[in-house]
This record gives sequence, structure tokens and C-alpha cells, in this order.
Amino acid sequence: MEKDFSKISMAVIRRLPKYHRYLKELLDKDIRRISSKELSEIIGFTASQIRQDLNNFGGFGQQGYGYNVEALYLEIGKILGLNQVYSTIIVGAGNLGQAIANYTNFTKSGFLPKAMFDINPRLVGLKMRDLEILDADTMEDFIRDNNIDIGIICTTKEQAQQIADRLVKSNIKGIWNFAPTDLEVPDTVVIENVHLSESLYTLSYLLNHKK
Amino acid sequence: MEKDFSKISMAVIRRLPKYHRYLKELLDKDIRRISSKELSEIIGFTASQIRQDLNNFGGFGQQGYGYNVEALYLEIGKILGLNQVYSTIIVGAGNLGQAIANYTNFTKSGFLPKAMFDINPRLVGLKMRDLEILDADTMEDFIRDNNIDIGIICTTKEQAQQIADRLVKSNIKGIWNFAPTDLEVPDTVVIENVHLSESLYTLSYLLNHKK
Repeated sequence: MEKDFSKISMAVIRRLPKYHRYLKELLDKDIRRISSKELSEIIGFTASQIRQDLNNFGGFGQQGYGYNVEALYLEIGKILGLNQVYSTIIVGAGNLGQAIANYTNFTKSGFLPKAMFDINPRLVGLKMRDLEILDADTMEDFIRDNNIDIGIICTTKEQAQQIADRLVKSNIKGIWNFAPTDLEVPDTVVIENVHLSESLYTLSYLLNHKK
Repeated sequence: MEKDFSKISMAVIRRLPKYHRYLKELLDKDIRRISSKELSEIIGFTASQIRQDLNNFGGFGQQGYGYNVEALYLEIGKILGLNQVYSTIIVGAGNLGQAIANYTNFTKSGFLPKAMFDINPRLVGLKMRDLEILDADTMEDFIRDNNIDIGIICTTKEQAQQIADRLVKSNIKGIWNFAPTDLEVPDTVVIENVHLSESLYTLSYLLNHKK
């Protein structure tokens, strides 16, 4: 199924991991079949939104039958690129970097951390589980020698852009940025920022205005 | 400006922190005034979306003038509840909990961590900066005695629901959940889940389909 995904909006793309997650939960409960209406009640999008979203990628549903949960789960996984493995490095071996390194869910999904990097001599050389903390000076060589796909930035805001520049020069394909700042990278590199404060501020909005 | 916010959709609410962040960056660059068109180029929403979003909260813009950056920034901050302070506790003092505790940005925004809790006797009693790690058994009393508003769950997936139940029973107002699972809480408690895998899967989608 090779389709042209280039015209699909980011809003739709961002909903795909949610579908994937809820479908996994249905599978775990051994639910094999679901209508867009039932799915709507679980996920909280409207049934027509769900049908529209999924039609972007080819019609998965069958009139009168609904969706085959497993087939849809696998297909969305494929669309998300989760049928592949990715080599990653974690830059910044502080608490956040270590937390990400220990997040076994990511490894299970095919995102395999190959090393951590830091500039702190007290951290360099340590091993966390099977992951070594290497000197940040050796990062470029490591990326090239080990065909690293994704760089995960867990440094301070101040160091982040410089690290991003070095990752880009080393031909990294994607950057997952946890530093609380927007980074500039060329169009050839994919970047995804995690803005934790946006989530926290949504919580505080709801604390003040819900009901 | 007391308005009825109850009919505003979550999609709009989730965009507010983005406006807030970009307006702060404009302020830092000493830009005092901006049109919805210029704002659109920076944020990436359409100008009409921006006008629509902001109209939900009262018309901030002036025809032919655009938006006063500082006034809009302050007003959105107020809407988000960032003109107040919140007492928080962090449950789970592992790497992620410690990373959150060290995230000074949250403190600056008025989210003040008052204690961390853990069940691990090797962690209990330790101090991180000014934050003590307390025995999880004392959590309920601490919440009541210190008027804690928000519980931040940084435990494993397996422990998270039980912790959420205990927070709810202690009359916590909001839960910020980092455990990779959806938690059930009554309608009276506000919950915001951070699903890091959704962000990672968006990255892998883009790696595979962008250009």
C-alpha cells in the first residue's frame, strides 16, 4: 500500500498514535471488531472524524462490520513506521536522559538506544543497564559508525541548539527534543519537540475553568 | 473579564499554551505589536484560526493595529491560570520524578513542588535541592496539611492507578500523569496525561513519510 502521504495534515498525523494506543488496549482486552461509533466513545473524537482520518490512509472499515481491530492496529503501526527499528542516541545523561534511557516501552516499540553522551567527566564512562555514557566529543564519530537515526536531546535549553547543529552535521535523520526551546534545523531533518509546559498549562487551565 | 469558558473545545485550549510560548519569545525580542498574519507565520496556524481562537476569550485584536503582544501574553497567561501559584507533589522519585523536580521552568511559572514521595527506603530521607523525598505512606497527610493542588505521577504504569486513587481520596484538585497508561479519576478531579510515545511515533511517521 504505497500512498501519497504528503498532503495529510499534521493534525491527522498527531491523532494516529492515539488510535494506535487505544487499538492496542482493545486488542489486550481481546476485542476484535469495533464500529467507528464505539471507537468514538473510547477515543473521544467524533465517529465522522474517525472515518475521515482513517480514509486518508485507505478505507479500513467495512460498512456494517466496522473495523477489524488487529488489522487496523497493525496497519496504523506500519503507517507510523513502527514495523521498523531505529537506532537512537541520548544526548545529556542527566535525570531526564536517564529516565528516557530506562523507558523500556520505547525499546519495545523498536527505538533502540545505542549510547548516551554527556560532557560531565563524572558521568562519562558510567554504564546504565547496557548503555554506556560516552564523552560528547566522540558523538559525531559514533553517529557515523553506528548509523544512528535519531538523536534525543535531553540537555539544557542553552546547549540544545549547538547539539542540534552537530547532530545535523552528522547526518542524523531525526531529532526528538526535550530541551524547552524551539530548535532550528534544515528541512532535511525531522524534528519533534516535547513541550512539557504546554501539557502543564493545559492542566492549570482545566483546574481554573472546568465546571 | 468573567466569561463562560465551558463551551470552548479542548482543541482550542491546547493551542493556548502555544500562543503563550510564542508571545513570550516575541516579548523577549522586544516585539510589541503583531498582526494575526505575522503571528500565523511564526506559530503555523492560519491567521483566521488565530482570530477565531482568540475571539473565544474576548476580542484582543484591534482592526488595523493587530495584537498588543504584552497585553495578549498577560491575558492568555491569566486564562491559563498562570497568574496564580500551585502547590505540587511529585510521586515517584526515580529519574523522571527527579527530572521534573529539577525543571526550574515549572517553578518559575508558579508550580511549586513541596515534596517528593517514594516507597524505596534507599531514597526516602534524601534531599534534592530543597526538596525532601518522603515515605509514600505519609502522602495523604502531607497533601491535607499542605493544601497540595496537583499530584505529579512519575511511577511505573503498574503503580499509577493506585496512586491516582489515593490522590483523589486526599482531595487533590489535579493530576499530571507521566505513567504510560490512562488513569480513571472522577469528574471532580482534572487529569492531564503526558504520552511521550505519541510524540515519538509522530517523529517516526515523519521520518518515513516526509518528502
